[in-house]
Amino acid sequence: MDDWPPQKRKRKDYSWWNTYSTRWGDNDMYGHINNRIYNSMFDTVVNYFLIKNADFDPINSNYMGVTPEIRCCYYKSIQYPETVDVGITVKRLGNSSVTYDIGVFKKNSEELCAIGHFVHVYVERNNQNITVRVPNKIAEACEKIIK
Amino acid sequence: MDDWPPQKRKRKDYSWWNTYSTRWGDNDMYGHINNRIYNSMFDTVVNYFLIKNADFDPINSNYMGVTPEIRCCYYKSIQYPETVDVGITVKRLGNSSVTYDIGVFKKNSEELCAIGHFVHVYVERNNQNITVRVPNKIAEACEKIIK
Amino acid sequence: MDDWPPQKRKRKDYSWWNTYSTRWGDNDMYGHINNRIYNSMFDTVVNYFLIKNADFDPINSNYMGVTPEIRCCYYKSIQYPETVDVGITVKRLGNSSVTYDIGVFKKNSEELCAIGHFVHVYVERNNQNITVRVPNKIAEACEKIIK
Amino acid sequence: MDDWPPQKRKRKDYSWWNTYSTRWGDNDMYGHINNRIYNSMFDTVVNYFLIKNADFDPINSNYMGVTPEIRCCYYKSIQYPETVDVGITVKRLGNSSVTYDIGVFKKNSEELCAIGHFVHVYVERNNQNITVRVPNKIAEACEKIIK
Repeated sequence: MDDWPPQKRKRKDYSWWNTYSTRWGDNDMYGHINNRIYNSMFDTVVNYFLIKNADFDPINSNYMGVTPEIRCCYYKSIQYPETVDVGITVKRLGNSSVTYDIGVFKKNSEELCAIGHFVHVYVERNNQNITVRVPNKIAEACEKIIK
Repeated sequence: MDDWPPQKRKRKDYSWWNTYSTRWGDNDMYGHINNRIYNSMFDTVVNYFLIKNADFDPINSNYMGVTPEIRCCYYKSIQYPETVDVGITVKRLGNSSVTYDIGVFKKNSEELCAIGHFVHVYVERNNQNITVRVPNKIAEACEKIIK
Repeated sequence: MDDWPPQKRKRKDYSWWNTYSTRWGDNDMYGHINNRIYNSMFDTVVNYFLIKNADFDPINSNYMGVTPEIRCCYYKSIQYPETVDVGITVKRLGNSSVTYDIGVFKKNSEELCAIGHFVHVYVERNNQNITVRVPNKIAEACEKIIK
Repeated sequence: MDDWPPQKRKRKDYSWWNTYSTRWGDNDMYGHINNRIYNSMFDTVVNYFLIKNADFDPINSNYMGVTPEIRCCYYKSIQYPETVDVGITVKRLGNSSVTYDIGVFKKNSEELCAIGHFVHVYVERNNQNITVRVPNKIAEACEKIIK
């Protein structure tokens, strides 16, 4: 846990980017995107990276990436109808797990909204107690975005 | 209720368009975007139309559009990570209410996914039992997309 | 569409009941349970009825109930942390479809919050274009709550 | 960050309990409650504790508890239609912040599903850049569940 709470990140600390659009119901009573939505960002953007770069098929693959841990530090609130930029990088590529570092930024800006720490462990789809090696295509895609 | 269940619509039946991006958690156990997400589309796209075209400020306005009724017919399932095109038109502009007709289409395609019927009634924010006239800017924006 | 918008219902119009607990993030900017949550109520309570009364296994069954249509009329807002009572009854049991009539009431009260019209059509899980007969156990459970 | 990843907890490590019901749409494509739902549990149960024990009114209070950080370790998956037991305790009561330790357990069991670390910082509702002291009633309620 050497680097948590994390140092504030900049855009250059991330390797692969996607946008994430907010929805009416993401704003809670306080008028901010609720904290549960950030976990949805992490799932949505990381899996999209894998779909696009590692031919990942979340419905038919015989393995699954399950999540043993998530952490998130929140710096600046977001409000519907904002769209934000989400950058990811791989912090650690293990035998059976991948640890992503995620940065959420105001659109086209260096203003940091949140930093996420998000881990996938690979297991067999049909027996989720059995851990497997990170699938080859996923490992190759992740290697390219290690920082 | 003359036209419900609705006749199948085409893109030309709608006046104003926005895209809607799906998320990992929108897919339910069956691997489809769950039906609750369509209500989120309607809220998200209709309010965005009002924010962009009628200076609507959902947090500070002294009125609110509340929803007395929604209907949705589903024709074709959607799956994360698809992005869909959502078209809206105003079917009826009343004294205090606006009825929207909404079409959800596969991206850049005539393939219809869903048709929504979505109503807003305007009330005072501080006393939601008091119905008010449709605010002027909203009425003007809605008139432009009546079909 | 003879009876829509529906006449206001009473508790005695419904046959099977479950409670539904609201969550912090269900309240939207207006401080009300957002309309998408009602669709979640319908899915959650109807499927729970089937799990409890028809041995329905949503993950392993070789059929699925998909939704061609939902309608909802909203009468009275709900706010987290309220718990509401949700009553269901079967309005029509067809060859391959079941139409549910759903009532949402304030807890232990006749105060009606919403009425839902919710349809399931049964299809093969592995080929969702193939409609199947309502499975026997489900048809039997549904017959017992026809009103 | 002395105690993270946390040692596995037992029920006796928590002071105040509530149940949390899962919903159809909480299960994702993998048939598990999606990780974003755990953040919803934390918001829902902690705020309910404050509503019940500190007269907290999330809509009208002149302060708000915003979230600078959440962490969650996941040990055992949960599936709709399960109901789980959520226990909370206060780990640190600061001048303007409260840190909660949260345990999610299978119903009536010592089987641990997840451990959460959840922080609230109090700010003025009308100027969320201004940090305020933890309101008295909230501080008193929190003191009673420090472990």
